[in-house]
Amino acid sequence: MTIDNPNTMKVLITGGGGFLGARLARTILQRGHLSGRPVRELVLADLVPPPPDVASDERVRAATGALIDQAKTLGQENFDLVFHLAAAVSAECEANLDLGLRSNVDTTRALLDALREVGGGGPRFVFSSSVAVFGGDVDLPMPRVIHDDTLPVPQSSYGVQKFICEQLVADYTRRGLIDGRSVRLMTVTVRPGRPNAAASGFLSSIVREPLNGQQAVCPVAPETAAAVASPQRTIEGLLKAAEATPDAWGGATALTLPGLTVSVSEMLDALEVVAGRAARERVRFEKNETIAKMVGGWAFAFESARARSLGLAADPDFISIIRQFQKEQGL
Amino acid sequence: MTIDNPNTMKVLITGGGGFLGARLARTILQRGHLSGRPVRELVLADLVPPPPDVASDERVRAATGALIDQAKTLGQENFDLVFHLAAAVSAECEANLDLGLRSNVDTTRALLDALREVGGGGPRFVFSSSVAVFGGDVDLPMPRVIHDDTLPVPQSSYGVQKFICEQLVADYTRRGLIDGRSVRLMTVTVRPGRPNAAASGFLSSIVREPLNGQQAVCPVAPETAAAVASPQRTIEGLLKAAEATPDAWGGATALTLPGLTVSVSEMLDALEVVAGRAARERVRFEKNETIAKMVGGWAFAFESARARSLGLAADPDFISIIRQFQKEQGL
Repeated sequence: MTIDNPNTMKVLITGGGGFLGARLARTILQRGHLSGRPVRELVLADLVPPPPDVASDERVRAATGALIDQAKTLGQENFDLVFHLAAAVSAECEANLDLGLRSNVDTTRALLDALREVGGGGPRFVFSSSVAVFGGDVDLPMPRVIHDDTLPVPQSSYGVQKFICEQLVADYTRRGLIDGRSVRLMTVTVRPGRPNAAASGFLSSIVREPLNGQQAVCPVAPETAAAVASPQRTIEGLLKAAEATPDAWGGATALTLPGLTVSVSEMLDALEVVAGRAARERVRFEKNETIAKMVGGWAFAFESARARSLGLAADPDFISIIRQFQKEQGL
Repeated sequence: MTIDNPNTMKVLITGGGGFLGARLARTILQRGHLSGRPVRELVLADLVPPPPDVASDERVRAATGALIDQAKTLGQENFDLVFHLAAAVSAECEANLDLGLRSNVDTTRALLDALREVGGGGPRFVFSSSVAVFGGDVDLPMPRVIHDDTLPVPQSSYGVQKFICEQLVADYTRRGLIDGRSVRLMTVTVRPGRPNAAASGFLSSIVREPLNGQQAVCPVAPETAAAVASPQRTIEGLLKAAEATPDAWGGATALTLPGLTVSVSEMLDALEVVAGRAARERVRFEKNETIAKMVGGWAFAFESARARSLGLAADPDFISIIRQFQKEQGL
């Protein structure tokens, strides 16, 4: 396991300072290997540095700065595996079209172009797309259940940008420039820390804040349904995309990860089971039309046949998702 | 019908010097109006100037040069209607990924961004996408018949780029920045003149050259099927996209125009009916694997329910397509 060993892995995680990226980094560092090959170096690129526990690992190097500025030099570093998680989030992209196009589409293309310049078929490239690609149109209402061949009709700029990146990843893969694998992530909950600018942020805060004894606002109606996944299941999906054999993985079309379908009121039922009525009563409903419209336009029921054939599964229920969060946060 | 009359139309055709663009221009000039409003100015943007018969019309102005350089100034001219036909063609895009991304994706985005800066909801924007968006993957083989909600899984960079532009047009439309309408064109045949760099070029040359007493090479097997449309039907589809009421048009998802499904051997049967055995015998089969793979991956059977509900129809048969060409060429 030296730097010169070609059987070791050099891995890049963009968005490696964020919640999912840092968690993915921790999981990889704990395992120590991917596809049976020891991880010798893990580069975490993000606007913010990785958390201290991750940064202090001697295999870790932080590449702090805007990805669009770093893409060219990073791309030429001969990575074996890239997890491309960095992105502007949904509400930011809806508020500022140019920011979203630059952060999501242009940055992904710059990274792909840098990687292809290295030649030799490029690294395995796991792209985190999103359930937000799905939506409905006047002529094409969204089906109640989403299948692997359902046409995405995104109704947010974020969803459009993710879908465009899926197309780029598929085409660069078809051309043999990278070995790309796009996975559509469900809404990840429960996220720790402060709310971010994602429209789906409340799907964490209506659980997290009450468990911490704080008030939370739910901007959508109780019957609003969502497809969610715990952080652990989400990381499992990303690692499966990295490690599946080409035969098991299949084609270059994006793979939709499994999601647990829950309504907000079911989430609050689970919260009450785990933490009592007082916790539930800390959640106040106050409708935000912008968020309700965005989230209400997302799909919430998925067959995910291709993901299940890879051994991936949704969380069993929302109570177990809350307990996973409690345990990890020491609550 | 003066320049100052707000009920007149100012129209832009990108790719207005090409075969389809010039034909569209001629049709518009002959009609003199669109959606009941007189056409006061028709700007034809292209690398090449429009043909003399079009250029000499006093309503026509040529904007000759690369569209990516002209997009910003053109976009600010307050057009009522834009037909965006300009594109690098399929074989070029497959040979040179960067050229395709620049000519197709970046140019479309530059044009859309210039148009949105004018404000006021932007012009009606008809984007010519392509049947080439359809394809199949290991996990998602292409269905035998394509419906309006079939997931495109493009297997060429050209198809990917067209599909990306459809997404941009839909998102800019959803945001109220333009009034965009994407139509997927079938392979247009019979094209006059010299072959271009489109992989589908032989679908014209195996008819055109024999009718002109010349030899032609068919690079695919006789049983290869394709979905084709005559120039006239194609122009009808573009004009319908420009003139349909918002209610009749429906959502922002791309509309697939009707196509006539024919095999190469059926095309040659029709050629023989129209021009005799000697004409058919001028076609020699010489397989080109690159072209056969690209064209063989395209869809060839379409339901086109949404297009038919707008009153659009495929050509009745290939004999009538050949006769249309003969008549127009004075053959």
